Amino acid sequence: MSVKRRKVLEVLDGKCLTPPPIWLMRQAGRYLPEYRETRAKAGSFLDLCYTPELAVEVTLQPIRRYAFDAAILFSDILVIPDALHRNVRFEEGHGPKMDPIDADGVARLSAAGVSDHLRPVFETVSRLRRELPAETTLLGFCGAPWTVATYMIAGHGTPDQAPARLFAYRYPKAFDDLLAFLADISADYLVEQIDAGADAVQIFDSWAGVLGEEEFARFAVEPVRRMIASVRARRPAAKVIAFAKGAGLLLKDYRQSTRADAIGLDWSVPLSFAAELQKDGPVQGNLDPMRVVAGGAALDSGIDRILDALGNGPLIFNLGHGITPQADPDHVAALVSRVRGRR
Amino acid sequence: MSVKRRKVLEVLDGKCLTPPPIWLMRQAGRYLPEYRETRAKAGSFLDLCYTPELAVEVTLQPIRRYAFDAAILFSDILVIPDALHRNVRFEEGHGPKMDPIDADGVARLSAAGVSDHLRPVFETVSRLRRELPAETTLLGFCGAPWTVATYMIAGHGTPDQAPARLFAYRYPKAFDDLLAFLADISADYLVEQIDAGADAVQIFDSWAGVLGEEEFARFAVEPVRRMIASVRARRPAAKVIAFAKGAGLLLKDYRQSTRADAIGLDWSVPLSFAAELQKDGPVQGNLDPMRVVAGGAALDSGIDRILDALGNGPLIFNLGHGITPQADPDHVAALVSRVRGRR
Repeated sequence: MSVKRRKVLEVLDGKCLTPPPIWLMRQAGRYLPEYRETRAKAGSFLDLCYTPELAVEVTLQPIRRYAFDAAILFSDILVIPDALHRNVRFEEGHGPKMDPIDADGVARLSAAGVSDHLRPVFETVSRLRRELPAETTLLGFCGAPWTVATYMIAGHGTPDQAPARLFAYRYPKAFDDLLAFLADISADYLVEQIDAGADAVQIFDSWAGVLGEEEFARFAVEPVRRMIASVRARRPAAKVIAFAKGAGLLLKDYRQSTRADAIGLDWSVPLSFAAELQKDGPVQGNLDPMRVVAGGAALDSGIDRILDALGNGPLIFNLGHGITPQADPDHVAALVSRVRGRR
Repeated sequence: MSVKRRKVLEVLDGKCLTPPPIWLMRQAGRYLPEYRETRAKAGSFLDLCYTPELAVEVTLQPIRRYAFDAAILFSDILVIPDALHRNVRFEEGHGPKMDPIDADGVARLSAAGVSDHLRPVFETVSRLRRELPAETTLLGFCGAPWTVATYMIAGHGTPDQAPARLFAYRYPKAFDDLLAFLADISADYLVEQIDAGADAVQIFDSWAGVLGEEEFARFAVEPVRRMIASVRARRPAAKVIAFAKGAGLLLKDYRQSTRADAIGLDWSVPLSFAAELQKDGPVQGNLDPMRVVAGGAALDSGIDRILDALGNGPLIFNLGHGITPQADPDHVAALVSRVRGRR
């Protein structure tokens, strides 16, 4: 650890920094020509995730360009089902696919070999910690059990996660078992990332928005609470950001119930509500990624509104969802300098 | 009008009925074998919408089976872009497609001929009013400008409406013009439905959930407010249900800002929040359609929770989104009898 503390960690401790630290979800991605060049060297997308040399390279690319305050491990939330032998593949233009799981399949799931399968990820993390500037926070991550389960049940991405919702209604016991199983192996996975050198971790619950009140409590809150408790039982100082996209009003008790240090906010979260949430602790977000594509006044006004609403509390500036391939790298530079230029 | 008042209209006037009236979004649909039979007689999906004899038949089918308290005109929100010569087509298994519009295209839009194009719809409405039981409320509907615009801009359905969000940031003036134009012709369309015999109308803003706070005010609230004001200026007694799916917390002021009589709630709206919203007026919703697919305990408990939370205020029982083709017609029968059986 350098003399200067890592800014994202300071905010996770509740400090208000001006300007706020900034990183972008999916910052190592297709909008960068150097990413596309490295991507072309790997066979499949999973090969890229599992080849430390390449994964380190793409993780570092946006840090070199923009000196973001955090680097996030380049990987994918679906390495967990891949480690569970669900035959995960990423087909160009079709999104991820895997063998759909049924209630019997849930009963047969085993954690054996998962950690070995994911060893290249831990290798990537430790190389990154060595190669990153001392002041850059290194974030590990994984998917939340609900979101990972939606892919495992459908066998692919779905617009409204109907297959998982239906499975949960039809087989409540098997579904609870699946979430608990995923929570436990994901907690192990996060502990190993922390041990390899991750300063903090983020849990992505990308599909939390389709859950009703009771389902949110059972499928989004409880498994993430279980994960965080399991990680902290072993690594008491672990710092966790939880991002429940689309959870809206249900974010109110999310931090307290899950014990996350910070909560991520998507761009649909009203800034007035975000400011209320910030009274209870650090928040991260929440610029609409389309503003980065548009650039100009749409980008500037979006940034200013967030800084006006949330800049006087503990804030990690970020997008409200991953940056898209269409984003212009020059717009990202403008975003970073505007966030940092304000006092 | 019969001696007995139509129940949905009574609730729209603020009355609390026990049991609440019930209808289901997309109740005339593929889950019914008789629908599939009639559908097979029409060439394209739009032919079905524009052939009064067939559209009347499919609208009546669920009323015959379940005696729902409301029938909703069988049509589609995309008849508006179709009437605007956007080359709308419904390809089996691919969802709707149309020619994407650009900023220049917005400037060239004309309302000429729209009403003539939609005449078969008005014919369907007037035939329905004659053929429906006197106690059944007849609902007309249209899409909200934001939702219709998302299809017109992308040229097809999209998971997160990114093309329309981007268009709105890049061409704010053209986008405002498009929404105002759609609001005005949609208001005309609703007035003609009311004149043809619709007792009330519903405005569907299916994609309201991807908007930030300021965008929701500009793109979801303002155009719908404008539509309702335009309808009421001509038909002061018009009754309107506004359904902004995914709007969450932003529903708080939605009724007051748009002047809708009732607001529709999707299944992700927490019931405690729904009860708050109900203090300001009637609400409609909000069972997860997947519960109807699952049936059994998942269906029963979902119904009971809604009735417990909202049954003592003005409520129109409905799903939180359209019923899906997988739904078992027997589960729909069980749903209706459970809602009606409770006192």
